[in-house]
Amino acid sequence: MQKNTITSFHPLERTLMGPGPSDVHPRVLEALSRPTIGHLDPLFIGMMDELKQLLRDAFQTGNEVTMPISAPGSAGMECCFVNMLEPGDKVIVCRNGAFGGRMLENVIRCGGEAVIVDDPWGRAVDPEKVEQALKANPDASLLAFVHAETSTGALSDAQTLAKLAHEHDCLTIVDTVTSLGGVPLKVDEWKLDAVYSGTQKCLSCIPGLSPVTFNEAAMEKVSKRQSKCQSWFLDLSLILGYWEGEGKRAYHHTAPINPLYALHEALCILHEEGLENSWQRHRQQHESLKAGLQELGLELSVPEAERLPQLNAVRIPEGVDDASVRAQLLNDYNLEIGAGLGDSAGKLWRIGLMGYSANAGNVLYCLSALKKVLRQ
Amino acid sequence: MQKNTITSFHPLERTLMGPGPSDVHPRVLEALSRPTIGHLDPLFIGMMDELKQLLRDAFQTGNEVTMPISAPGSAGMECCFVNMLEPGDKVIVCRNGAFGGRMLENVIRCGGEAVIVDDPWGRAVDPEKVEQALKANPDASLLAFVHAETSTGALSDAQTLAKLAHEHDCLTIVDTVTSLGGVPLKVDEWKLDAVYSGTQKCLSCIPGLSPVTFNEAAMEKVSKRQSKCQSWFLDLSLILGYWEGEGKRAYHHTAPINPLYALHEALCILHEEGLENSWQRHRQQHESLKAGLQELGLELSVPEAERLPQLNAVRIPEGVDDASVRAQLLNDYNLEIGAGLGDSAGKLWRIGLMGYSANAGNVLYCLSALKKVLRQ
Repeated sequence: MQKNTITSFHPLERTLMGPGPSDVHPRVLEALSRPTIGHLDPLFIGMMDELKQLLRDAFQTGNEVTMPISAPGSAGMECCFVNMLEPGDKVIVCRNGAFGGRMLENVIRCGGEAVIVDDPWGRAVDPEKVEQALKANPDASLLAFVHAETSTGALSDAQTLAKLAHEHDCLTIVDTVTSLGGVPLKVDEWKLDAVYSGTQKCLSCIPGLSPVTFNEAAMEKVSKRQSKCQSWFLDLSLILGYWEGEGKRAYHHTAPINPLYALHEALCILHEEGLENSWQRHRQQHESLKAGLQELGLELSVPEAERLPQLNAVRIPEGVDDASVRAQLLNDYNLEIGAGLGDSAGKLWRIGLMGYSANAGNVLYCLSALKKVLRQ
Repeated sequence: MQKNTITSFHPLERTLMGPGPSDVHPRVLEALSRPTIGHLDPLFIGMMDELKQLLRDAFQTGNEVTMPISAPGSAGMECCFVNMLEPGDKVIVCRNGAFGGRMLENVIRCGGEAVIVDDPWGRAVDPEKVEQALKANPDASLLAFVHAETSTGALSDAQTLAKLAHEHDCLTIVDTVTSLGGVPLKVDEWKLDAVYSGTQKCLSCIPGLSPVTFNEAAMEKVSKRQSKCQSWFLDLSLILGYWEGEGKRAYHHTAPINPLYALHEALCILHEEGLENSWQRHRQQHESLKAGLQELGLELSVPEAERLPQLNAVRIPEGVDDASVRAQLLNDYNLEIGAGLGDSAGKLWRIGLMGYSANAGNVLYCLSALKKVLRQ
């Protein structure tokens, strides 16, 4: 039997500079291992209330409905779609990378009708094209787009896109998985309606949770649904029975207790640093990395004005073997950088500078290791 | 601003003897805080392969498709329904507690037609009623039932129910959230088709993951679907691209790395103890608890032959205030026991003896604390 040979798993210490997970802060790892308590324990309920407030601060919102979904970012995405969409609803989906494509899949599986606005991978969503689509589809009720495309490193203008949507009576579903904590994201000021994120990027928490926030307009749409939400696990009206309400909380599912401790700790760290300081740090480390890459003769693929500081898509030079470089970085230097996704596989590396990974030491280490491996 | 007052959360050490989460083994908490590595790291992929094998051993199955879903047991349940059901499918749902009711909700939300077989809360599913329903509904394609009802403490005869289902050309969806690791569960021998479980019960891992296993008959039904699975996050064909396959694993979602370390460790501990020994330990501690409760004049509500050793439903004596007893146990003794759910709220306590919680010390502690509080 194979089983007899299996013993405790002890991972190596890696430096995580791919598209996520990012390096997890030691305080977050410590928080993870605090004693598990019950999901209806008054102490835990108190922690949940703090967690909501910390998330509101990170999202820059006063939205009452702000909490983490008990599953990864893809489930946060699905939570937005299954609650905001009803069969037959028309949705304009912006697709400038892998995650726009995943949004489209969600629309289809919810029985929605999708209008696709395509932009090249590695570019921001073009507001002009979006405006044309909104004009051509006055019956559309939703605009869905990705703020920070993890697959390409492109940043889109969420404020402008949301403004266009509202001018055409559409609400927005916005993917902020990679933007939260890393670049300016102002849910209230920009009037973003249904927003989801992830924990394993610029928050430097472990993967597995998806913070979401819904404003009043979004919740009004949810509350006026004619049909039941197709997912029981992701039905907001049920989830809110656990996360909201004065006094008694209704059991929905068993919350992932320890990962929620970790998220609370990660958000405390963000709060101590200050959100603006965190944005500034990501920008600064990106500038250092960019300068170092230039010295190595490496180019970033996204136009400067559309670049995410926390995810750097680097063109793989002619004649360099993608997989072998990444394998050497991992095996010889315990350094993870990301491969290209989809069309950019073999053409791009994705170097993450997210959360705790966005520090001067990591930038130097990554540049030195790349130099060694590329000059072999 | 409220936020300024929020600092790191440090829970008290509780003794968890409710319906789950159970006490988490210290080795599992330590495993949780091991360094996070990438979800496509070859080291992590190797750990995933071990995890599948350890889960097969725990489920007593050779099923290739055996892995944890990256979300709590409710998502594991939904994974079984959204993949096994197509709109219009007729499903016989056994409802003898809260989780049978949740299965019914899943059938409705998948567009299935449900035939309900009701049994009283606190009793096992009655195979005769199930046989009648199967005979009366020859067009049914699925039978769904809960092996161990966490809401009531009743154990049903999964082997007999599965046999009846197969005699009538139905496949089975079986909830083993509370049974896995605590009482005999033999997926292959009993021919259970689509099975889901949880990690925070008799495995004594943290909540947030849902082990599932699908046999060949179940996978054949999944592969012959005419319609797309309504969930992207829970679509087995996509999940398997990450968990299965020789060599390259396709990115689906970012796996919750550290909780998977924890599950691996919890399953190593189960393997070291031996599955049969674990069943035996749960049985033994149940007998001790039962004897002690009798001395206190407390009665178990489920008939002896249908009782779960790991979840003991205790009748609250006349004149005793439910909430105040539980609050005293929690506040004065850091001891959590569970309230009744639904109809049994205020009438029952649920005392869990699950996984690491099922030890002689916990039994004595719980009995002494109950004695103190009840005699005040």
